[in-house]
Amino acid sequence: MALIVQKYGGTSVGDVERIKNVARRCLAAQKKGNRVVVVVSAMSGETNRLLKLVSQITERPNEREQDQVVATGEQVSIGLVALAIQGLRGKARSFLGSQVRILTDSTFSKARIKSIDAQNIFRALDRKEIAVIAGFQGIDEEGNVTTLGRGGSDTTAVAVAAALKADACEIYTDVDGVYTCDPSVVPKARKLEKISYEEMLELASAGAKVLQIRSVEFAMKYKVPLWVKSSFSDDPGTLVCQEDESMENVVVSGIAYDKNEAKIAIRGVPDVPGVAAKVFGALDQKSIVVDLIVQNVSVDGRTDLTFTVGKSDFVKARDVVKKLLKQIKAQGMETDDDIAKVSIVGAGMRNHSGVAAKMFQVLAKEGINIQAISTSEIKVSCVIEAKYTELAARALHTAFGLDREEAASVAG
Amino acid sequence: MALIVQKYGGTSVGDVERIKNVARRCLAAQKKGNRVVVVVSAMSGETNRLLKLVSQITERPNEREQDQVVATGEQVSIGLVALAIQGLRGKARSFLGSQVRILTDSTFSKARIKSIDAQNIFRALDRKEIAVIAGFQGIDEEGNVTTLGRGGSDTTAVAVAAALKADACEIYTDVDGVYTCDPSVVPKARKLEKISYEEMLELASAGAKVLQIRSVEFAMKYKVPLWVKSSFSDDPGTLVCQEDESMENVVVSGIAYDKNEAKIAIRGVPDVPGVAAKVFGALDQKSIVVDLIVQNVSVDGRTDLTFTVGKSDFVKARDVVKKLLKQIKAQGMETDDDIAKVSIVGAGMRNHSGVAAKMFQVLAKEGINIQAISTSEIKVSCVIEAKYTELAARALHTAFGLDREEAASVAG
Repeated sequence: MALIVQKYGGTSVGDVERIKNVARRCLAAQKKGNRVVVVVSAMSGETNRLLKLVSQITERPNEREQDQVVATGEQVSIGLVALAIQGLRGKARSFLGSQVRILTDSTFSKARIKSIDAQNIFRALDRKEIAVIAGFQGIDEEGNVTTLGRGGSDTTAVAVAAALKADACEIYTDVDGVYTCDPSVVPKARKLEKISYEEMLELASAGAKVLQIRSVEFAMKYKVPLWVKSSFSDDPGTLVCQEDESMENVVVSGIAYDKNEAKIAIRGVPDVPGVAAKVFGALDQKSIVVDLIVQNVSVDGRTDLTFTVGKSDFVKARDVVKKLLKQIKAQGMETDDDIAKVSIVGAGMRNHSGVAAKMFQVLAKEGINIQAISTSEIKVSCVIEAKYTELAARALHTAFGLDREEAASVAG
Repeated sequence: MALIVQKYGGTSVGDVERIKNVARRCLAAQKKGNRVVVVVSAMSGETNRLLKLVSQITERPNEREQDQVVATGEQVSIGLVALAIQGLRGKARSFLGSQVRILTDSTFSKARIKSIDAQNIFRALDRKEIAVIAGFQGIDEEGNVTTLGRGGSDTTAVAVAAALKADACEIYTDVDGVYTCDPSVVPKARKLEKISYEEMLELASAGAKVLQIRSVEFAMKYKVPLWVKSSFSDDPGTLVCQEDESMENVVVSGIAYDKNEAKIAIRGVPDVPGVAAKVFGALDQKSIVVDLIVQNVSVDGRTDLTFTVGKSDFVKARDVVKKLLKQIKAQGMETDDDIAKVSIVGAGMRNHSGVAAKMFQVLAKEGINIQAISTSEIKVSCVIEAKYTELAARALHTAFGLDREEAASVAG
């Protein structure tokens, strides 16, 4: 008898009919002989409705109180899902974050899970109930309600699966798996049957939105087999799991892009120790998260320091750097928020050389200038002008052999 | 330094502007040197919206899950009120029923409060915060979320006031106090400055909707001075308190009516012990609450047994009695759901004779037939045909000298 954790996102519980659909799916999984735990998000639009109420009350909301308000979205969903299961003559019981003691730190609005007390969940399962758990929310040591940040329900699901030592964690969403690239941009994108945690992490960091990064980290840490499936079909979906030999043969598994960044380049900085520390220390003090950092080879004792930040932090970051220019003796600053980051990801890169070079050639052939480059063991990212994003994604997709075959033959 | 508990109902927190208004009132009370605790209801319409969602999912909802859903209305309100106070540079902290441990029994949807742990509230007050507490909700021994039933926020407020030994409990609503009768029916109705707990209880039981019955019982039991005030004016409102000498001089304090009852009369029952026990035992088994019970003097060893029930229980009660008729050897049954109960209430009745007789005369003079009578020490209720309700209320209001004087002089 397997123990399965299923997670349904906001669109999957978006209205009464969809909630009943989720109930049917949970019961179907139970009838197959599984013990079933369900984690649900707020009904789509609900979290935004609550945040809007908060913003109408005050411009700079206290995050404890905001969490108190926003956590209600999931509370409504779990009650409704439990009722829908009961309405189909199933047994179910809903649990708040506080009721299964999803203990978090006290970083309101983006709290991190510290532990989960599985006792109440196991008791419900022993009574043959489907345990319906609120995603996104927890409780801190003092009993305050906390939330985990956008997409936090994925993390709840994986954390619950880890705590229960579940056999699988199934993330149900409105797409039927992880694709080689966003199919709305690359029509020839293929659904992946399998992908490694590391690749999924790199894809998520590079802009793919199918799973929250922290949930993948959690799954990797606790080795939870993670399925991405559609709540509207019976497609087997994509399995995110530990790397195996078959994966090493695939050089590039997927392509991701992120249009939500802006670039800041500091020109002519003296190449002496401590400059980068000063710049990024100052940015960190303002809680600005820096993504990609590139420093060129020094010429005449001076170098350029380029980095990207999220668009929402762009103005703040620019002001921080502007104030530092004199102190670090830089010659100037250039900024650009009309950029995109395009990345290729693949576990096979470890064993194949020339992957980055091939990427640069493909982009050059399309006349796309590369403004900055960053690499990891299994990823290459290039910053380019935003308007070339889709062209770059499609060209790289074809060049690295990711195009769907049927589509290719039809086109041919 | 006084400790005041203020309670704001659904219309008082009905939208963002009204929530800000509540915040201003709380801060004004604090600035006067008081320690302030606020209990709030769900925004008006919210509880009904949630109940509608529940009813769309299933016709017969499990009450634990329904409470899980419905309790979110108050959770949103407390967060928003706390944020509004903070937005005005005040200090505030919101508390769920579970966070101040409002312990109830496990009778979901109409739970009763067993105890309140005042510790967290006092801690907040010591930090000069306004404690904002969710009305209507609690938690049972097992950590399940419970709700107290319609109007339960009044009870929360009084229970919190009792637990804190507060100096006053102020119930803010959309009317500015307790009136001698519903002003929409009796335009000459006067606002009362003061009324005793017992009178308020009788008025509430007789149909007056200004306060929930259980909240008055609680206030009486723990001697909490209770103010009924408007959240939209600075009117001092009505004080509900222990009876004093001044009250004894007023024969009738108020008039109430209730159109929400139906009458069942069992004709020609043998006047032997055990009949009433059988009838009301059977009704109780179906959880039907019986209001007024009248049994006539027996003639030839037979008597009539008349009682009223809420309209929503009428059909169920009729079926129960129909099945019993043969067993209790009754001659027949008559039912009528087109009735009203009109009541006069006054602590002074204890010391004045002839009050009931006067009521009957007033009704007779208006040509209103009395179908059943019930009395308590400080109340007389008559069941009459529903269409005469307003006429009876106005005639009794004038006859017992309750009409507003200014209005009388303007009219004269």
